Amino acid sequence: MPPTPDVAAPVIVEDHGRVRRIVLNRGAGRNLLTHEMMAALTDALDAPEAAVVVIAADGPAFCAGHDMKAMAAHHDDADGGRDYFVALFEECSALMRKIATLPQPVIAEVHAVAVAAGCQLVAACDLAVCADTARFGTTGVTFGLYCTTPAVPLTRTVAPKHAAELLMTGDVVGAQHALRIGLVNRIVHAAELTRETMALAAHIATKSAAVLALGKRAVAEQGGRPLAEAYACASAAMVDNLLLADGREGLAAFAEKRPADWQDR
Amino acid sequence: MPPTPDVAAPVIVEDHGRVRRIVLNRGAGRNLLTHEMMAALTDALDAPEAAVVVIAADGPAFCAGHDMKAMAAHHDDADGGRDYFVALFEECSALMRKIATLPQPVIAEVHAVAVAAGCQLVAACDLAVCADTARFGTTGVTFGLYCTTPAVPLTRTVAPKHAAELLMTGDVVGAQHALRIGLVNRIVHAAELTRETMALAAHIATKSAAVLALGKRAVAEQGGRPLAEAYACASAAMVDNLLLADGREGLAAFAEKRPADWQDR
Amino acid sequence: MPPTPDVAAPVIVEDHGRVRRIVLNRGAGRNLLTHEMMAALTDALDAPEAAVVVIAADGPAFCAGHDMKAMAAHHDDADGGRDYFVALFEECSALMRKIATLPQPVIAEVHAVAVAAGCQLVAACDLAVCADTARFGTTGVTFGLYCTTPAVPLTRTVAPKHAAELLMTGDVVGAQHALRIGLVNRIVHAAELTRETMALAAHIATKSAAVLALGKRAVAEQGGRPLAEAYACASAAMVDNLLLADGREGLAAFAEKRPADWQDR
Repeated sequence: MPPTPDVAAPVIVEDHGRVRRIVLNRGAGRNLLTHEMMAALTDALDAPEAAVVVIAADGPAFCAGHDMKAMAAHHDDADGGRDYFVALFEECSALMRKIATLPQPVIAEVHAVAVAAGCQLVAACDLAVCADTARFGTTGVTFGLYCTTPAVPLTRTVAPKHAAELLMTGDVVGAQHALRIGLVNRIVHAAELTRETMALAAHIATKSAAVLALGKRAVAEQGGRPLAEAYACASAAMVDNLLLADGREGLAAFAEKRPADWQDR
Repeated sequence: MPPTPDVAAPVIVEDHGRVRRIVLNRGAGRNLLTHEMMAALTDALDAPEAAVVVIAADGPAFCAGHDMKAMAAHHDDADGGRDYFVALFEECSALMRKIATLPQPVIAEVHAVAVAAGCQLVAACDLAVCADTARFGTTGVTFGLYCTTPAVPLTRTVAPKHAAELLMTGDVVGAQHALRIGLVNRIVHAAELTRETMALAAHIATKSAAVLALGKRAVAEQGGRPLAEAYACASAAMVDNLLLADGREGLAAFAEKRPADWQDR
Repeated sequence: MPPTPDVAAPVIVEDHGRVRRIVLNRGAGRNLLTHEMMAALTDALDAPEAAVVVIAADGPAFCAGHDMKAMAAHHDDADGGRDYFVALFEECSALMRKIATLPQPVIAEVHAVAVAAGCQLVAACDLAVCADTARFGTTGVTFGLYCTTPAVPLTRTVAPKHAAELLMTGDVVGAQHALRIGLVNRIVHAAELTRETMALAAHIATKSAAVLALGKRAVAEQGGRPLAEAYACASAAMVDNLLLADGREGLAAFAEKRPADWQDR
């Protein structure tokens, strides 16, 4: 018996100048990453006019991860749920990789609890700002499901012993802990969270979108390579950047002591 | 002239429910990683009934590393000690890799000084809890022996400049420094160290051992891979986890709002 | 029209016992990494008699990166500057890689602002000590040039979200922020910066230079490898170290309870 469908749009999309703001909008359902939610979020990330993307959420939770009741129901499928689970985690991983490869910087705005795949979403974003009321955890192990997929961005974001503590205990930690281990960049008062996050986004959006895109891609590409290879990769990107219209404009503006007028903004 | 043999058992092994507690027991000899100690510790790690393993120590030091006097004596061997040294570091590296690949989470409980291979042992564990009286160092360089093998887990645990500082200075640092750089997870009062560490171990041991084992292995396997490959690896592990008996039980218990009853606990 | 040539030597080189101190000496020009400056710094790093190298700077800035006016002028070249830019970033990357592969530990002494390639220089050093007056940034994005090459050592020094914040905002941060994210090892009062940095250098220089060189190389070589391979690499280096004259001397001195008398100091 399917649950009553939630009639609210899964996400609200707002464009504020060059900042796309995506708000997870199934607060009553703790913004679970259902198929509907993931599809809507994946679509909302296509924002060719934006220079920066913010992912925020409404309701008592930022995001409580996957829909465990729906998953439990699929254990009764003929194949024990395998096909459903394979498709679910392929879809979720594609979403997370899309954030990593999106041309724009993506900022998580975390006002409340972000657990399991919700914590993964925060880790997968380029930057994260949280309220003092935010909490974080990779809680799956408590429910018999080690957070192996959340571990992918988590272990690329925080130090190994910090990741292991979250993954093995399943504990939920506060904003100060998240700041200390580098899971978030900044903590602000809850009342100022949206204003501060949008100000950060608007600040980054004053840069050239073409330059931000080139840079984000180049930094990802050089990652994990031996040093000489990484420098070859990053140097080639730097030359490409210098030959972009906005690379020329930036240097000309600097030399002429005037504000830059980006072509791609 | 060999030293008087130490008649104490190199390690004491205690099983507290599903927690195996291993105590380095050559305190008078600063728990040096002699062949005897490494063999005993390697054996003690085989704990198929345990969900979690704790490595603690007795005496004035947690572990002072290798037996440098024994090593010095082998410089007089016909081959300058090469065969002895090769075997010694192969044995030590095998011990450290065993901790990394052990199915169980391994927690270091550090009450006092842990230097050189003793610091390596702490870095090699999944988690570390220390007393405010603990100290840490990769002191080899002071004695003409750069801590290259301790550097393997150290550089995978703390940031590069923090590792370089320890390795190049040979200095011994306090518990607060170790916490700041991520070498340990928590500092507690010395009098509460064992109680706190065993409570953490018991907390983790409430999880399914099968799930912990699957998760620890999967997190190691996805490490260092390109993002798409890491997600493929972690997603496959997640599906495997969902099809485990304890994956089914965890979700069923969640859906039925009852405590889980793990098969593998 | 070329600028008036700066008649000051680009760098001042001082040898204090076994510590080579290199001071960037174009303070009036914010110690820009011109061809002249990079060539002089590259040469000054050849210090076979030194055990440790310090890179410091004179003037209102530690180093303000590349000469953006000169770069802007090359946009008018027939090829849009491509050949010039390729050569410039090859030269700069070669300098940074030379620091990473130099036998000696290299310590940055940062008294003031270090931005773009100046921040890269700090990240590229093995260790960094800064004054409370120091500031750091990868500011290129503000001028239409994402700091892709500074990102190479930056992303190998600090956590991903910390690197992304610096790279995407272009903001300049203070010494406390740099310490928190691991970009520097220590902050000291500005008036004590040189004394403290030189004391750290002299402390490291009491070690065997041969051992420091072997160790720095081995730690770099094992980095990024799978665990078993990393241990094979590090163990081989440990055996080589034990068979060095200074490895023998260090252990003998320890066994005989006397100070070591390094051959290579």
